[in-house]
Amino acid sequence: MHAYDYPLILRHLLHGPFANARDQEIIDAAGTRYTYAALEERLCRVANALKELGVGPGSVVAVMDWDSHRYFECFFAVPMLGATLHTINVRLSLEQILYTINHAGDDVILVHSDLLPVLSGIASRIVRPVKLVLMADLPIPVSGEFVGEYEELVAAPSPASPFGDFDERTRATLFYTTGTTGEPKGVNFSHRQLVLHTLAVASWLGSVPGAGGFNRADVYLPITPLFHVHGWGIPYVATMLGVKQVYPGRYEPAKLLQLIAEHGVTFSHCVPTILAMLLDAPAAKTTDLSRWKVLIGGSALPRSLAERALARGIDIHAAYGLSETCPFLTVADMVASRESADPVAMRIATGRAVPLVQLMTVDAAMKEIARDGVSTGEVVARAPWLTETYLGNDAATAELWRGGYMHTGDVGRIEADGTLKITDRLKDVIKSGGEWISSLDLENITGRAEGVLEAAAIGVADAKWGERPLLAVRLAPGADKASSEQSIRDEVTRAIEAGRLSRWAMPDRIVFMPALPRTSVGKLDKKSLRATLVAS
Amino acid sequence: MHAYDYPLILRHLLHGPFANARDQEIIDAAGTRYTYAALEERLCRVANALKELGVGPGSVVAVMDWDSHRYFECFFAVPMLGATLHTINVRLSLEQILYTINHAGDDVILVHSDLLPVLSGIASRIVRPVKLVLMADLPIPVSGEFVGEYEELVAAPSPASPFGDFDERTRATLFYTTGTTGEPKGVNFSHRQLVLHTLAVASWLGSVPGAGGFNRADVYLPITPLFHVHGWGIPYVATMLGVKQVYPGRYEPAKLLQLIAEHGVTFSHCVPTILAMLLDAPAAKTTDLSRWKVLIGGSALPRSLAERALARGIDIHAAYGLSETCPFLTVADMVASRESADPVAMRIATGRAVPLVQLMTVDAAMKEIARDGVSTGEVVARAPWLTETYLGNDAATAELWRGGYMHTGDVGRIEADGTLKITDRLKDVIKSGGEWISSLDLENITGRAEGVLEAAAIGVADAKWGERPLLAVRLAPGADKASSEQSIRDEVTRAIEAGRLSRWAMPDRIVFMPALPRTSVGKLDKKSLRATLVAS
Repeated sequence: MHAYDYPLILRHLLHGPFANARDQEIIDAAGTRYTYAALEERLCRVANALKELGVGPGSVVAVMDWDSHRYFECFFAVPMLGATLHTINVRLSLEQILYTINHAGDDVILVHSDLLPVLSGIASRIVRPVKLVLMADLPIPVSGEFVGEYEELVAAPSPASPFGDFDERTRATLFYTTGTTGEPKGVNFSHRQLVLHTLAVASWLGSVPGAGGFNRADVYLPITPLFHVHGWGIPYVATMLGVKQVYPGRYEPAKLLQLIAEHGVTFSHCVPTILAMLLDAPAAKTTDLSRWKVLIGGSALPRSLAERALARGIDIHAAYGLSETCPFLTVADMVASRESADPVAMRIATGRAVPLVQLMTVDAAMKEIARDGVSTGEVVARAPWLTETYLGNDAATAELWRGGYMHTGDVGRIEADGTLKITDRLKDVIKSGGEWISSLDLENITGRAEGVLEAAAIGVADAKWGERPLLAVRLAPGADKASSEQSIRDEVTRAIEAGRLSRWAMPDRIVFMPALPRTSVGKLDKKSLRATLVAS
Repeated sequence: MHAYDYPLILRHLLHGPFANARDQEIIDAAGTRYTYAALEERLCRVANALKELGVGPGSVVAVMDWDSHRYFECFFAVPMLGATLHTINVRLSLEQILYTINHAGDDVILVHSDLLPVLSGIASRIVRPVKLVLMADLPIPVSGEFVGEYEELVAAPSPASPFGDFDERTRATLFYTTGTTGEPKGVNFSHRQLVLHTLAVASWLGSVPGAGGFNRADVYLPITPLFHVHGWGIPYVATMLGVKQVYPGRYEPAKLLQLIAEHGVTFSHCVPTILAMLLDAPAAKTTDLSRWKVLIGGSALPRSLAERALARGIDIHAAYGLSETCPFLTVADMVASRESADPVAMRIATGRAVPLVQLMTVDAAMKEIARDGVSTGEVVARAPWLTETYLGNDAATAELWRGGYMHTGDVGRIEADGTLKITDRLKDVIKSGGEWISSLDLENITGRAEGVLEAAAIGVADAKWGERPLLAVRLAPGADKASSEQSIRDEVTRAIEAGRLSRWAMPDRIVFMPALPRTSVGKLDKKSLRATLVAS
C-alpha cells in the first residue's frame, strides 16, 4: 500500500468546513438560506445533474448570473467534476460576450432569467452546440430552448458524491480580460493555483491581530461580481474557513445596506465606485457600518473615499492584483495601519506582498530597481497562482511572461519596508523629453483645481518630444472653463516648482468633456479617450 | 517565453518576510540578536559554507543542538540547498542516536559543544565518513576533528545567494520516531509538504478573531525541541509571517520565564510536562503570563493543568498530531472556546481538523464510524503533509498507509460538530470479554482516587477473557496502599455503574510503583511497563 498522493484540488478545501462548520449558513438575498451541511449535498446534486448533461473532464460550463448562491455553488461543483467554469462578464458588450463564449468553447451555459435578453441577442451566433440551463429567483415557466431549470436539476438526482481525484494542474476556471488593444484575452487558473491562492490569502488576511483582517467569526458579503476574478477568490477563502456567507444577487445600494444590517456583515470587498455609491445611498445614514471591514481593489483607493469610510467606522484597506494574478498580489498593511502616524496613507497604499508572492520593480532590461521608495519601474511578480497563459494567444503569453516574471503593466515604487506604491499604468505613462510623466500624478494634481470633478491624462505623439500630455477634464456643473483652465495650469505649475511633477508635465491641450469614458468595470477608458481625442 | 513554474520550496516562504519584515528580530537566549535582513544574509553565508564542505542535492546534514538561532537557520539553509536536514533527537539513547546517524547516512553533523560527550561516545562507530562542525555559544578552541566552527563558517564566505529551484518533492527533512517495537523509524518530509503545512497552519491559527491564535503581532518562543517534528513546524509559520522570534537554547524554567518577560513573548507550544514545570518554577509567581498563548501537544492536555494555566491568564489550547503528520492534524477550537459553556472542555479536546486535513475514524475493515460523539474507531487521515514513507522500511510504510489512509494508531470518537476526542492509543486499548476498555479512561478515573499521583493501565493476556486490565499506580508520599487501593476500586465501580467504563474494566491487579517509566519525549512508556510487570 502506498501513501495517498494528495492533489491540490478544490474538493479538498471542503473537508474542514463540511466537518467543522455544518451548521454555519449560506444566505442568498433572494430568500434561499441553508447550512454548509446542505451545501455539501447540493454540490453533489448539482454536479450529478451536470454529469447527466454530459459535463465531465474537459467540458466548459459558463455562468451568466448576479452574485447568487447558485453561482457560488458552481464555483465548486463545476471544477470539482474536472470541467472548467467560465465566468462570463455580463457587463461586456454583446459582441464581446459572444466572442468569449465562442472562444471558450462553452458546452453548457447557466443563465439567470434577468440576463436572457443579453443571451438571446447573440444566441444564434454561438458556434458550438450549447445546452442552456435557466436560473431564476422565482418559479417561472421554462421554455423549450432550456434543458432545465437550476433548482429542478438540483432537486432530481442522487446526492451521492460524483467527485474524485485528478491532476491538480487541471484547469478550473476561465474568464476574459479586456485589455487596451485587441480582443478579450482568456485568463485561466488551475485547481492547484486556486488552492494555493486560497491558503496564502487566508494566512495573510487571517494573521491580523484584533478584529482586523478576515477571520472565522466574520460574516462575508462579496460586492465584487463573482465573474470578476472569481469574486477576488474570497468565496474560496470564506468557504475553507467555514464562514457565514451572504450572496447579494444584483447590486442595489439599499439592498446591500439592508443585508449588512440584517445579517451582521463584517467583511466585504469592492471597487471604489461601489463603496462611494453605498455611502451616498440614503439608507447609509441609518446603517451601522462600524463593524464592517472592506478591502478595496480594482482601482487605487482615493484618500478622500478612505477618509469618508473611516469617519463611518469602516475598517478600510486597499489591495492590489490583476485578473491575471487570481488576483491577490498585495494588501495594505492591516497591522501597521493601526499604529501608523498616518493610518490613511498606510490604508490606501497598494500594500505589501502576500505570502509566496515575489514582487519587484524592473527597468526595460529586467534589471531590478532599488527599493528606495523613489525609483520607479514596472511591477513584475512570481507567485504560484499567476495565469500561465492567455488562452490560445501565444504572442500575448510570451509578452506577459517576458524574462520569466509576470508583467503587471503597472509602474510603481517599492519602499524599504516592502510597501508597493503604484504610480501608473505602464501604457498610461507619458514619455516626454526623455522623462516619464505619471498620468496618475497629473490627474491627481488637476483634481485639486477649482471646478474640476475628474481628469484623465493621455500622451499624444509628438515629433519633437516623443509624447506630450493632454488632459481631458470633467467640470462641475456651472464651472467656468477659462478660470478652471487657469486654476489647473496654476496647480500644475506649483507641482512642477515643488518637484512633484516633471517639468515636461504641463499639458499642451486641456479638453473639457461632459463625461469621461469608462470601461465595463468602471475604470477610466483611456483607449477610448485616445481614439476620440487624438483623432479629433 | 513561458510562465515561471513555481515550485513549492522553502525558499519561496521567505519572499514575504525578507521584503516586509526586514527590521523584525530573531533573538537567541545566549545573546545573539539580529534582524530578518541579517538573517537573509546569514542563510546565504551558512549555505555557501556548507557548499564548500561538499553539501548539495542529496546530501544529509544532521544537527545536534538545543533550540538555538543556528538550528533555526539550518531549518532553511540546509533544505534550500536541496540537501536533507536530519534533526537528531538528542534525548534518545546513545545506541539509538548512533542507529539514526548510520541509517540516515549523515554527511555532515553540526553539534553543540554541550553535546560533544554524546557524540564522542559513538563517533567511532559511525559507518560513513562524516564531517563535524562545532556549534558553541562562547568562543572555544576547535580541535582537529572538526572542519570548523559554525560562526566562523558563517563569517567567511560570500553572501551571494546559492539557492535555486528544484523539484518541490525533494526531501527537506528527516528525523526518527521511536515506536513501541523495533528500531527507530525514519520519517521524512518534502519541501512541498512543509510549505503546505506552513500555509494551512498559518491560515487556521491566524483566522482566530481577537488576540487569539497566532498572528503577525505575536512574539514567538518555541518550547518544543526543534528536533521534535521541526518544532511542530511553527518556526516555518512564524518566519513566513515575519514574526519576532526568540530561541531559548537549552530549556531551563527560570530562563524561559525570563525570556517571556523580557521579550514580551505571546505565543509558545509545548508538552504538558514542560508547562507544568514552568508553572511550578518559583519565578512563575512573579511573571506576568496573561498575554501568553500556549498550544499543548505530545500528550493529552489534562483538565487540571488547563485550569491552572487559565487561572494564570494563559490562553491555552490542545493540538493533535504525530511525528508522521508534520505534525498538525487538529487544534482545539480557539473560536468556540471563547463562547462555550464549558470552555475548559473545548480547550482540552483534541480539536478540529485544520484546512486540507481529511479526518475520520474507522473500524478494522476501514469502514467509517459514525460522527456521533460516542462510537470509537481508529483515527485515519489524509493531508498533503503526511510522511509518505518510513525511510527504507516498506513493511512499516505499507502498514502505515493501509487502505490509502494514514493510520494514526490512535482511537477516538468524532462529534457531529467535527470535534475529535482521542480516547486511547490503539495498542493501549485493552480488549476484554469482547469489549474495548479505554486505558486512558481507566487512568483518568484512577487519578481521582485518594493518594494517587498517576496511573498507567495495560492489558495482560488472559486465556479466558483475551486480555485483563492491570493498573500501575504511583502514590503520593505517605499515602496508604490499602486505603488507596480501596479508593481506586470504589472510583472504578462508580464509573462502571454510571456507564462511563465497561463492566470489564475493574483491574485484576493494582501494582504500586515509586515511578512510572517514561519515553524520551516524556510519554508513559507502556512498552517498558508491560515488559516489567508482565514478566514479573
